[in-house]
Amino acid sequence: MSFLADHIRAMHGYTYGEQPSDRSVIKLNTNENPFPPSPAIRETLVNLDLEELRRYPDATSLVLREHIAARFGLTSGQVLITNGGDEAIRLVATACLTRNDVMVSSEPGYSLYPVIANVLNARWLPMELGHDFRPDSEAARRCIGQRARLVCIPNPNAPSGVLLTAQEVDAFAARFRGPLLIDEAYVDFIEPALKHDLVPLLARHRNLLLLRTFSKGYSLAGARVGYLLGEESFIEELATKVRDSYNVNCISQIVALAAFGDQEHARKTWEVVRLERQRVSDVLRERGFNVPDSQANFVLPQRRDKASLGDTYERLRDSNILVRYFKTTRLYDRLRVTIGTRTQNDAFLKAL
Amino acid sequence: MSFLADHIRAMHGYTYGEQPSDRSVIKLNTNENPFPPSPAIRETLVNLDLEELRRYPDATSLVLREHIAARFGLTSGQVLITNGGDEAIRLVATACLTRNDVMVSSEPGYSLYPVIANVLNARWLPMELGHDFRPDSEAARRCIGQRARLVCIPNPNAPSGVLLTAQEVDAFAARFRGPLLIDEAYVDFIEPALKHDLVPLLARHRNLLLLRTFSKGYSLAGARVGYLLGEESFIEELATKVRDSYNVNCISQIVALAAFGDQEHARKTWEVVRLERQRVSDVLRERGFNVPDSQANFVLPQRRDKASLGDTYERLRDSNILVRYFKTTRLYDRLRVTIGTRTQNDAFLKAL
Repeated sequence: MSFLADHIRAMHGYTYGEQPSDRSVIKLNTNENPFPPSPAIRETLVNLDLEELRRYPDATSLVLREHIAARFGLTSGQVLITNGGDEAIRLVATACLTRNDVMVSSEPGYSLYPVIANVLNARWLPMELGHDFRPDSEAARRCIGQRARLVCIPNPNAPSGVLLTAQEVDAFAARFRGPLLIDEAYVDFIEPALKHDLVPLLARHRNLLLLRTFSKGYSLAGARVGYLLGEESFIEELATKVRDSYNVNCISQIVALAAFGDQEHARKTWEVVRLERQRVSDVLRERGFNVPDSQANFVLPQRRDKASLGDTYERLRDSNILVRYFKTTRLYDRLRVTIGTRTQNDAFLKAL
Repeated sequence: MSFLADHIRAMHGYTYGEQPSDRSVIKLNTNENPFPPSPAIRETLVNLDLEELRRYPDATSLVLREHIAARFGLTSGQVLITNGGDEAIRLVATACLTRNDVMVSSEPGYSLYPVIANVLNARWLPMELGHDFRPDSEAARRCIGQRARLVCIPNPNAPSGVLLTAQEVDAFAARFRGPLLIDEAYVDFIEPALKHDLVPLLARHRNLLLLRTFSKGYSLAGARVGYLLGEESFIEELATKVRDSYNVNCISQIVALAAFGDQEHARKTWEVVRLERQRVSDVLRERGFNVPDSQANFVLPQRRDKASLGDTYERLRDSNILVRYFKTTRLYDRLRVTIGTRTQNDAFLKAL
């Protein structure tokens, strides 16, 4: 296909988890919240004035931004609403990188990061995590040495669920000083007793951006709404220069608003997921798997004998249970398993 | 903001038309269809299973693609659904351009094109249109000389509504041979008697992409759904490499499907717009304006004395009538006026 730029021709796209249309499949492969979104959304949809569809949506999703800003004690100018979290990553990368610039992201991590670097004809370098899925103390210094123009860290880490503390992120941001995107897609599932909160760091680090999403915590993967929190002028540049003008449709804006307004519903789902996460982790450990302490809505069991879990993945699949398997050097002996409902988790544990 | 790449820091974002929340404003500035979308959408929204929101949407909008493909006698692999037409432009540009590559687009034209070129650190060059808003016969040859890696032509032209015939596009595609994006955002408003149809050209030109949108013809600007038609392998590269995996949310997919299924409703709106376009053009000409023959849902009246229409724009604004004014050398003596309902058009003509 000679119409494409050389770097696009040479690259491979992102491989997303399978989305079967068969509803009988027990789907523990793409980290959806197992519980439905707030029933308040129903009313929102029923009452929608079709006139809203005729017109362009609010280009900057102002009302939603205001609600999010108020909850976090920020200004609406510190919030950017995106077409899912993936768009947020793309916008930050597009704003910070051009050809041959370096993006660094956690490895193992979210495999979309290197793909986005490739799309931009930038270079991607891994921040190699230790066996405990944590960067070592020299990671920030190494990023500077690599002339990284952007560092992306999913936290909790995907695919392990391991969490860096606010102190660790604080230290990294202070040392690296360049644009640092902390991808908090799974932040809602962190144990509240940890009192983990990166938002106060925004006042200390102009280079820090936090990515959140409604996909997991608010059970709205289908609606495609994510957001960035950051310093006002950084957010403004992203919003006015690299973002498609009407990036979030009008229905998703009001659906997300309804879900965000029903914190009680969302919190209940997080609590159940946390309890099930603990239960599933415990059972897996009793059965002889290594399971990193996860603060996300998935776990990453590993065989103690380091044998491949590829066959197990296939057998689960044959039993109508979908989990995620990554055939890489670091992950071939693990499965990434989304925490489902109690019934779903039991079915997984039984089939395993 | 030293966190941004130099080319982003240096560029200016796209300025979209004003979207006032005041519903009493007569809004003839951003080319929405003046009539509401198909009432069939209502049922779709009321019956939506919230479970659809919990899960990721169909990543490739397959059902919608199949319906579109069937109508045009294409395969579903020749259709790519996008988050509004703007995403389609961005995807094509991202796939074809890297730093310093050249994009050419019609001038006057849709001012998003140069912005997208800037975002990609590419160079944008104008395809200067004549006084009749048409490229001259050497335009394709000139693009080759400029080493254009992508040529974008809105057709009907925005902001004039002037249409290139299928023969003209055919000749351009054959001569230029590089990626050619024909932006048919306003295709639905073309006079049916012209029997204008570029879809058959897809079989002759692998380099040709057609962009369509639900925003105007189907009164769904708020839903953000557009699509590209093109050669299968070209479409596949765009879909699997540069597109965000879940670019179109589940509700917009079904809303667009409902609208597309109700062709009769949409066609009626197009007919009224065409009649009103003729009427408004006639009245404006009687009043001494030059008005190019528009095949879109807007007209571009020009003062015969070439005096600025900036004051007129402001006075209309003061009368609660919003039209679009571009303060450029080519357009300062014109207004771009969306065709509204008969009542809205009369209000505009009266206030003018």
